Amino acid sequence: MIFASIITIGDELLIGQVVDTNSAWMARELNSNGVWLKRRVAVGDTKQEIIRALDEESRETQIILITGGLGPTADDITKPVLCEYFNGRMIVDEGALENVKNIFTKLSNRPILERNLKQAEVPDTCTVIQNKRGTAPGMWFEKDGKIFVSMPGVPHEMQGMMTDFVLPALSSYFKMPVILHRTLLTAGIGESALAEHIQAWESQLPQNIKLAYLPNYGMVRLRLTGNSESKEDLNTALDAHFASLRTLVDEWLVVDKDQNLQQVVASLLKERNKTLSTAESCTGGYIAHLLTADAGASKFFKGGIVSYDNDVKEQLLKVNHNTLLTEGAVSEETVKQMVQGALLRLDTDFAIAVSGIMGPDGGTDEKPVGTVWAAAGSREKINTQKFQFRFNRQRNIELTANYALNLLRKLILEQP
Amino acid sequence: MIFASIITIGDELLIGQVVDTNSAWMARELNSNGVWLKRRVAVGDTKQEIIRALDEESRETQIILITGGLGPTADDITKPVLCEYFNGRMIVDEGALENVKNIFTKLSNRPILERNLKQAEVPDTCTVIQNKRGTAPGMWFEKDGKIFVSMPGVPHEMQGMMTDFVLPALSSYFKMPVILHRTLLTAGIGESALAEHIQAWESQLPQNIKLAYLPNYGMVRLRLTGNSESKEDLNTALDAHFASLRTLVDEWLVVDKDQNLQQVVASLLKERNKTLSTAESCTGGYIAHLLTADAGASKFFKGGIVSYDNDVKEQLLKVNHNTLLTEGAVSEETVKQMVQGALLRLDTDFAIAVSGIMGPDGGTDEKPVGTVWAAAGSREKINTQKFQFRFNRQRNIELTANYALNLLRKLILEQP
Repeated sequence: MIFASIITIGDELLIGQVVDTNSAWMARELNSNGVWLKRRVAVGDTKQEIIRALDEESRETQIILITGGLGPTADDITKPVLCEYFNGRMIVDEGALENVKNIFTKLSNRPILERNLKQAEVPDTCTVIQNKRGTAPGMWFEKDGKIFVSMPGVPHEMQGMMTDFVLPALSSYFKMPVILHRTLLTAGIGESALAEHIQAWESQLPQNIKLAYLPNYGMVRLRLTGNSESKEDLNTALDAHFASLRTLVDEWLVVDKDQNLQQVVASLLKERNKTLSTAESCTGGYIAHLLTADAGASKFFKGGIVSYDNDVKEQLLKVNHNTLLTEGAVSEETVKQMVQGALLRLDTDFAIAVSGIMGPDGGTDEKPVGTVWAAAGSREKINTQKFQFRFNRQRNIELTANYALNLLRKLILEQP
Repeated sequence: MIFASIITIGDELLIGQVVDTNSAWMARELNSNGVWLKRRVAVGDTKQEIIRALDEESRETQIILITGGLGPTADDITKPVLCEYFNGRMIVDEGALENVKNIFTKLSNRPILERNLKQAEVPDTCTVIQNKRGTAPGMWFEKDGKIFVSMPGVPHEMQGMMTDFVLPALSSYFKMPVILHRTLLTAGIGESALAEHIQAWESQLPQNIKLAYLPNYGMVRLRLTGNSESKEDLNTALDAHFASLRTLVDEWLVVDKDQNLQQVVASLLKERNKTLSTAESCTGGYIAHLLTADAGASKFFKGGIVSYDNDVKEQLLKVNHNTLLTEGAVSEETVKQMVQGALLRLDTDFAIAVSGIMGPDGGTDEKPVGTVWAAAGSREKINTQKFQFRFNRQRNIELTANYALNLLRKLILEQP
């Protein structure tokens, strides 16, 4: 096995100003390229901490990926620390210099400063990785058969370098084992009950195939991961084990691919050549955002109405004024009428509607924070469901979106 | 100074299946409670790796916060490893048992299983932290004057324990120094130029006050962080340095608080008692989602139309059919009409509209991927702007949303 470790550098990670999305992306890419990530560590912009991390992380892994601390400002010290660590001296890299000049003269109308030009300097002990999306070059170091790669912390710059240079270069440097996954998504059964249900099957898995439970939004994702020298053998073994798992959990199966719920809904609609619209109150556009996050959404999603205010429910979705007065905005009748309004006004085959109280304020005794009505409908039928969530605003919004999408998924499958 | 380290445990973190949002949240809370986070490390569900992390992370810090690996399934091994590490034996905690039973009998209709009951077992060497939001109890260990706290990886369960128990308990265990921040947001100037501009001021900062540059979405956030024994002295010093910084960057200042752009817009609208609507094509509801992410949005946000399909632009926003034919959906004239449509149909004082090509497909020579038209308008005036982004779909959506909100911010400030 080839093991890797990720070091992310930056004080902003240690005071929680930013969420580290880079590590998850890098982990995924490493994994699908046959590298097993052993650890991830985040340290501040401090020489001593960076060196400690370099020492510790290279002790048991062959690949050390480093991001962050390559900016032009004084708090960015990764490059000089690496220069010293790998016994180099700073030289100007002509390719990187050309790149910096290009970005400043062609792509922005900002004056080029001494500190920007300095970004083209690199230790003479590294192989330079050109940055097609920014000014800071990446650096590839080799030491005692181990590879250290330093990249910017800006996600799309790091991603470009990984895809264009680092992953191919690692694949040719190391002989990688094959790592493969099979993933399925279940709904309507808890993690423990599921574990109980598949216990006998799980205990028979061979050494090189592992099962993981990944609960999320009230659903549970199951993932089989195998590693082997032979891709063919591993595929055969994984297919067999995955097929028995699939049969065992059939009752709760949402999808037998690594897809999220909105991708499942998108596939169902595209296969059937049907269109969808949304009428969102409490989720404020989040369901539409999820549906349009992946390219190709225009094939099934026509649009939506965010009816945050009751006026908008009445004017645009034609929800009955009396219904809002007597039943309230958070009611079965309101979400039904919202679905009808969306189907009509956006002229689609299916529509989803949600209305609820996301918190922290706005709850009443009768309808406490977390009360949600959702509806999914077509011209023929509208299904509704009431939920009672008990989390914070953000999680209530996420759960509402996911449960509403699941309601829609079931309705689509009901239709002939 | 009191130093802390965070250990997150779970194979899912190492294959990139989930993004770790817990660490950022915990870092923020520690920081505002006077604890300096030194490192964050993520390891897999492996005994050897967990023990290595416990040894290494406790070497130079007094507080070690641990999340993850407390679930009821076989891959969750954090609890037995901690039991061994702290020389304990497993006993049933009556409070935790009561809690598990409560959750299963009152809150769900799922049968209670042996493995669920086992969640109430804890090492007899820990202080139990009851979990008000889930079944797995937290554990507080003391060893050689250092505190180790183990919590579930489920964000809202961890957050509940931190707020209710861990942070207050840490504050009474250690004598905390005061750590305070001042943050402002700039737009329209790059990180390097800004650094150049404030270089002289920055070099005069005292030892205990540090400046950080946090570029995001084409804007740069500047944060001053100070630590001291005396809250009063620190506040006085920070206020003075922040005031001079504020004056220096006045030309590019968006806000002198730790707010994001949608919060700035929300404040401006609420102060002026004005309403807002959105008309989104390429962002697919993301702007509306940002505007409604914080509670209280109903005070200014009436709703929006996600006009993903051109039909919806015509039918609901009354964009001229000929405009779409001759100018195209991604054009200045279209976003102007979208603003007018939103102002009229949603009856608001202000409206934002965006239309663009987010990629990866759909670009042409004339309008490549990343081309965006945005408009912000009131009954009196509509301002438009064209952008050319060059990133991936997700980032293009985020940038479009932020630049459109900034266009609106400037328009609101223009109005008498």
